This record gives sequence, structure tokens and C-alpha cells, in this order.
Amino acid sequence: MSAYHPLNEEEAIRIARSIEGFFPQEAELRSREIGDGNLNLVFHIADSVGGKSLIMKQALPYAKVVGESWPLTLDRARIESEKLILEAKLAPGLVPTVYKYDAELALTVMEDLSDHVIMRQGLINGTRYPKFADDISTFMARTLFYTSDLGMNQQDKKNQVKSFINPDLCKITEDLIFDDPYTVSSNNSFDPAIADAADALTKDSALHLEVAILREKFLTNAQALLHGDLHTGSIFVTPESTKVIDPEFAYYGPIGFDIGAVIANLLLDYAGQEHWMSDEAMREDFRQYLITSIIEIWNQFESKFRTLWNEQGVDRLANSAAGYQDYYMKRLLQDAVGFAGCKMVRRVVGLAHVADIDRIPDDATREKAQRLALAIGTSLIRGNRQTQTIEQAIDTALTAAGK
Amino acid sequence: MSAYHPLNEEEAIRIARSIEGFFPQEAELRSREIGDGNLNLVFHIADSVGGKSLIMKQALPYAKVVGESWPLTLDRARIESEKLILEAKLAPGLVPTVYKYDAELALTVMEDLSDHVIMRQGLINGTRYPKFADDISTFMARTLFYTSDLGMNQQDKKNQVKSFINPDLCKITEDLIFDDPYTVSSNNSFDPAIADAADALTKDSALHLEVAILREKFLTNAQALLHGDLHTGSIFVTPESTKVIDPEFAYYGPIGFDIGAVIANLLLDYAGQEHWMSDEAMREDFRQYLITSIIEIWNQFESKFRTLWNEQGVDRLANSAAGYQDYYMKRLLQDAVGFAGCKMVRRVVGLAHVADIDRIPDDATREKAQRLALAIGTSLIRGNRQTQTIEQAIDTALTAAGK
Repeated sequence: MSAYHPLNEEEAIRIARSIEGFFPQEAELRSREIGDGNLNLVFHIADSVGGKSLIMKQALPYAKVVGESWPLTLDRARIESEKLILEAKLAPGLVPTVYKYDAELALTVMEDLSDHVIMRQGLINGTRYPKFADDISTFMARTLFYTSDLGMNQQDKKNQVKSFINPDLCKITEDLIFDDPYTVSSNNSFDPAIADAADALTKDSALHLEVAILREKFLTNAQALLHGDLHTGSIFVTPESTKVIDPEFAYYGPIGFDIGAVIANLLLDYAGQEHWMSDEAMREDFRQYLITSIIEIWNQFESKFRTLWNEQGVDRLANSAAGYQDYYMKRLLQDAVGFAGCKMVRRVVGLAHVADIDRIPDDATREKAQRLALAIGTSLIRGNRQTQTIEQAIDTALTAAGK
Repeated sequence: MSAYHPLNEEEAIRIARSIEGFFPQEAELRSREIGDGNLNLVFHIADSVGGKSLIMKQALPYAKVVGESWPLTLDRARIESEKLILEAKLAPGLVPTVYKYDAELALTVMEDLSDHVIMRQGLINGTRYPKFADDISTFMARTLFYTSDLGMNQQDKKNQVKSFINPDLCKITEDLIFDDPYTVSSNNSFDPAIADAADALTKDSALHLEVAILREKFLTNAQALLHGDLHTGSIFVTPESTKVIDPEFAYYGPIGFDIGAVIANLLLDYAGQEHWMSDEAMREDFRQYLITSIIEIWNQFESKFRTLWNEQGVDRLANSAAGYQDYYMKRLLQDAVGFAGCKMVRRVVGLAHVADIDRIPDDATREKAQRLALAIGTSLIRGNRQTQTIEQAIDTALTAAGK
């Protein structure tokens, strides 16, 4: 069972049983394939006697998105596994534990988080997560600081850049986030009702300049080892716990890209609440909770990142140059705001959408949510380089969107 | 003769003879070791009958600078050889031809350029190079454009980044250019007469902020495959020909770093002419030639880079976003100005100096040249982010230096 092939459930069980010290000898293992089959096989393997369980994730050599099939390197399984193991060291408790990685099978065996829910669904359900801002800001501050030139040996960092070169997965982001939404592309997908707004995106030259600048940062700015796909579908939560999963898009890029992903997805849910929270007062209250979360996430991120820098910074000049930390943090905020905008826009007119908005059954309400998301997103992009504070950026974007 | 060991002249001749089709059978080969012995062995091997000759450069596993010995990876020979071969494709005629690369021996066999002189020495001698601005701007525009995300497949570029990760050599630059000159460091070396100026550099917080920002770009900004050490000691010239050598510092970094290196070294010679050109009218005339060269180099570089972008650009959004090219080119200029300043400062107070200034025999004249170079360099650093045109940047720096 060595050379690569997609596993069947029997094989998956055999591998699970071979993991030393996990399942007891008498375990009765059952497997359930729970992946969506687009990029990976995901087996949930549980002992029906003892109750213990684990997850086995196997990369498939292609991506199936909207019926199309793209070849996709299996090396992303190595990247995901190595990134998860590194995250566990840098941000303990905030990612699933990896039990085993099999390079040949492109297989990662890890902690089962079935007691958590995918945050996107949790937010759609109107659940609040009081620990989330603290947890995700810790996750980002620590994983980003300690993989940057500020927080690790700068020669080791270069070798880490090398081992996380990730062309296939970066290409997906470059196309779907930083190109297609701003041109006529067969990858785009949007409701006919907002065709005018989608068309306007292809003609907005002020927007194109900002997106080109942000795209360049994504292509060239090796600041830190990113998660690379930090949306609310990559986060498992309970009110007491946060676990970040699926770092297969990991690569060295601009720090603001991860932060922007979190902000964007809270704002996409904000837009989608047009439908999910039918009572208007409750809706506006939940939206206020989302906005407060965004502000807390940035502020806590900033404070934790600065503390790490002041206490653990390895770069003599970066540590001592007066004003440099302020300059650096402001650019991170500006980048985060710009990337957040790009990530919102693409979820409305690009290839891959979000359930917060797409699953709204009523056409008119869905259209309203889509236009709201686009208005917020484009406003964030437009204003990113002028951003001074997170409060001002969000306030400006909401005002521009008529909120 | 396979495993790595430093070659003796007999072995060098044997290898030279083995290069197919180069020397005739009856050749009488003589070898001369002409390296400075700091980083590499360099053998000049010539046929005393037919007159043909070649150069063999073998990397040593250490760097000897000012008596100290640092271990240094032999992988730099691979990097140098691969970069030379790539440059020959992208900028034909502007680099020595590589005849052979032996990975195990860390050995590159290449074209003999003994009919050229090292440009630094040529400038010290007061020679003008009428083709230089055209050649070096072509070299930079083509090698930088075609290795950037603007001019090559963006997924191939990521694999190229990977194969040119160069931690050891980058570390030298990070320490000697972007750190030591701004602090009290045992690596620094300067004449006691300018101790006050060297001390001032360690206390100038406005300067430290700018250097920290430039240092960050060197550490994180993978714009294009740089030469990485493009000073006038890495350039062979005649009035009709330009050949760029020694790209062992090659890595993916900010484009402005290569351009800044050229500008800095012309300005260092400008300062050194205080001594070399004793007639004042001739001196100011030669200095005007150097300034004109710098302005031409930037202007021609910009024009050639823009033409390549317009005609060969591969990035849809970068090609179409209005204003993006102007924005990009202005940042290149600003970076070039900032890096030029850093490269001047370090050549006066840092570990490695330049003959243009260091070899001035008279103490008072040398001090005058050193202070002039420092004044120009610090002014370029201070003003880099405000730079609008090359003329204005040079003019401001010369005025600040009392010229």
C-alpha cells in the first residue's frame, strides 16, 4: 500500500489501526468519507467501542470546482502537514494535532474535531463566539511573527521560504481573487441580477490600480508564512475553542492577507445576515457583534504582535529604529483592509462563493446582500492605502454601503 | 578528481584541456592563479602557442575578509553559474560565456575577458565609457524584467525563487550593508579622522528608520532575480564593451538594489576623484560625466523596462491597470536611490571599502572624499521615499554635500 492511490475505506481503517498507541487493540473501527470530494478525501474513523476517533485527509491529484478538473500537486499535502505541525508549536491548542503524515500517500492523520462546528455555519446560525477574537488574534500574531524576519533566524527563514514554495495553490488565489473578478472571465460566476455591478468591476480603473498593487504584494512580498486561506470555512469553533484547519495554501506572503481573510469573512456574514437574522433589531445587534469582533481582532492582533516584537524581536535594526514598528504595523493594517476587500468581491462575482450569501433563498434578499458585500468590499479596496485605524476603515466602508 | 578540493594549477590545466573543442590538441597550456584568494580561486589558462585562453573560477568553502575566515557555502558556485547562463540568454553579449560548470568541484569555466579592465580601475584612471549607460541599462532592464512576475510565467518564477535561495551570501549583505554601519560593530572599519561621522551614523534615528525600511525590502521583496553585487568591481569594460561578472550574490530581491549598486559606485568614484583627477577643471568635467551617466542609466533603464513591459508583459492586470506602471517605476527609482545611499555609506565606514577612495594616499584628501561620499549617501537615504526624478535626487544629494 505504498505508491500513491486514492484510499478506500478499508485501507483507511488499516492505516488508522497502525498508528501506535491511538486505538486500543479491541477497537472496532468504522470509516465514513466526509470530504466534499473537490480537492481531498476525508475519512472520519471512529472506534464504536471506545469512542475515540480521528481524521485522515488525503490529497487528490486534481481540483474539481464547478465540474471542472484541474491538475493539482500532491505536494500540498506535505505543505499542509508541515504547516500544521509548525502551527501547533507556535500557537498551541489552536490547530488539530497531527498524528502522522505519509508523504507517498499524501495523507495526514489528525485530531478529530467533530465536537466543533465550521465557523461559517455557526455564524449563519447566529452563534456568537466570545473567545474567537482572542484566539484568532493569538493564532495570527504568533504564527506570523515567528515565521517573519522579525521573529526567526533570517537565514533559516530563507530555507523555510524555499520549502513552502507553493506555485499551484498560489495560482488559484492569483487567478480567482486578484484577476478574474476584474475582467470578463469564464471563471466568474454571479447572479444575473447583479450583472451591472459585476460589469462595473471590469471598468473601474481606480479599483484596478489598487488590486494590481495588492496582487503584486501577494506575488512578491515574502513577509511571513501565511495560512493562505483563512476564511471562516477553515476555522472550527465552539464558544470555548478555536481550531484553524486546512493550511494547504500556505506560502510566504504578505501578513495582511491572512488578517484580511478573517475580516472579509466576518463582513460577508454581515451582508448575509440580511436573510439569516430575520428580526431587524436582532440582526443589527448581531451585525454589531461582527463589527466589534473585527475591531477586537485587529486591535488584539496588533497588541500581541507588538509585544512579541518588543520581547522576542531578532532584528537589531528593526528593534531599535524609532518609528519603524509604527510604520510596519500601519502597513499591515492597510494591507489587511485591502486584501479583505478583494476577498469579499471575489466571493460575490468570482468562481467560489460563500454559503452566508449564496444560500439565501429569496432572490431579492440575496441580491441585497450581494450588493452590500460588493459595496463594502470595493470601498475597503479603494481606501486601503489611506487607512489610519481599523474603526475608520470599517466605518467608511459601511457608510459607503449605506449602513 | 571528483570530490571537492581546491584545485592546483596542474589539475586546472587538465580540466581545461578536457573542454571539448576549445583548445587544439597541440596547445601548450599555462596556468596562472589570479584570484585575490578571499572567496575563490581564479585560474587564467592560456595556450602559449595558439593564444586562446579561458578562466576557471572555483569557490572556496570560506570567505577570508580582513584576516577573518567565515564558512561559506559552495552552493554559491551553482548559483553563480546558473545565473551567468541565464543572463547570457536574457542579455546576450553582456556577460562572459560559460563553457562548463562542475557542481562537485564548485567550478565554473568561462570566457577570458583579459582584454577588458575592471571598471573601477578604469574610472580611477579617468577613462570614460561611452557605451556603458546603454549596456548596463539593457543588462538590468532585461535580466530584471524577464525574471519578475511582469515578464515570466509566475509559477515558474516561484520555482526560480526556490533555486536561488542564497542565505549565506544574503547574510553578508544584511550585516555589512544594512546593519553594521548604523551601530557599533567590530565589522566596521574607518579612518580615525572620520570617527565623528561614523559615530553620528549610529545616532541618527531618521536615517535608521529609512535603512530599516530598505533592509526589510532586501529581506522580503522577491521582485526579480538580482545580480546582488553590481558594483564597478563586478563589471569588465572597454570603451566598446561591457561584461558583468561575479553574480554569486544572486537571489530574488528588490529591483532597486541592483540599480542602486551601479549608481552608488559611480558616486563613490565621484567622491574619490577629489584625488585622482588633480586638475580641478578636468575633475569637475569628469564628475559631470559621472552624473550624466547616472541620469542616463536610470532614464534608459526606465525606458527599456517600460518598453519590455508594454510589449512582453505577462500579467493581465499589471498590463491593464491605469497608473500602475507609473506607480511601479517610481517605487523602483525610490528604492534605487535609497539602496544607492546604503551602498555608499557602507563603503566608507563598513568592512569593505573601495579603491576609488581608500587608495587616496593623502590623508586630508582622503578624508575630504570620505566625508563627501558619506554626505551624498546619507542624503540619498534620507530622501529616498520623496524622490520624484533621478535628476532631483542627485541634485539634492550633491547640494547637501556642498557640491
